[in-house]
Amino acid sequence: MIKIDPRSPHPYYEQIISAIKQQCLAKILLPGDKLPSVREMAGTILVNPNTISKAYQELERQGVIETLRGKGTYIAERQTNPINTELELKLQKQLEEFCIEALYLEIPKETLTAWIEENYKKLKKE
Amino acid sequence: MIKIDPRSPHPYYEQIISAIKQQCLAKILLPGDKLPSVREMAGTILVNPNTISKAYQELERQGVIETLRGKGTYIAERQTNPINTELELKLQKQLEEFCIEALYLEIPKETLTAWIEENYKKLKKE
Repeated sequence: MIKIDPRSPHPYYEQIISAIKQQCLAKILLPGDKLPSVREMAGTILVNPNTISKAYQELERQGVIETLRGKGTYIAERQTNPINTELELKLQKQLEEFCIEALYLEIPKETLTAWIEENYKKLKKE
Repeated sequence: MIKIDPRSPHPYYEQIISAIKQQCLAKILLPGDKLPSVREMAGTILVNPNTISKAYQELERQGVIETLRGKGTYIAERQTNPINTELELKLQKQLEEFCIEALYLEIPKETLTAWIEENYKKLKKE
């Protein structure tokens, strides 16, 4: 299930987006799987329905999920999406801020590379 | 000077923290350099004084700057700081979320490593 960390610096809706993508990567969620409705999800993880709705809207915009009118919300087929370029640029900007912080803490870039390796290994289930 | 990007997903006070650390890394700001007062900075970059104050407080907590009563705010000497472990853990957590996003976009880890190399080269002035 989706876990929300109230002490994370990331807003709840971003944590929800991240958790759903993580479950897709880990093949816990597969294309065609039905997601709980906004209300159900809000009740389960105890978050305001507006927050869930905001996360679902952004996931839909990014092509991760799709809503079939009157049927519910499903994990979409993976596809290369025009929005990906926008998301990639956002990631690059994030990484720059990340590197400022890491350099300031005198973390060598080899350590960052090792962290990335670990995360990729942990997250990726082929 | 400090530039604020209203379209960044990061709150203003985080952008200010990041910008000041970046200028320290680039040796634009050196230990002992005086920073503008909260009011001056707020007037220059057109941000609410409370936001500047929040950024300065966090920078002081992290040992990046120090306030000398009645004299002003200065860039502190760099030192290994007990707070660094906390910041490093926060970075690791951030990197995990970053990797979820990158993997979902099918960005190979070699690309991330190359991005880090570039950022380190650009940010680090010896």
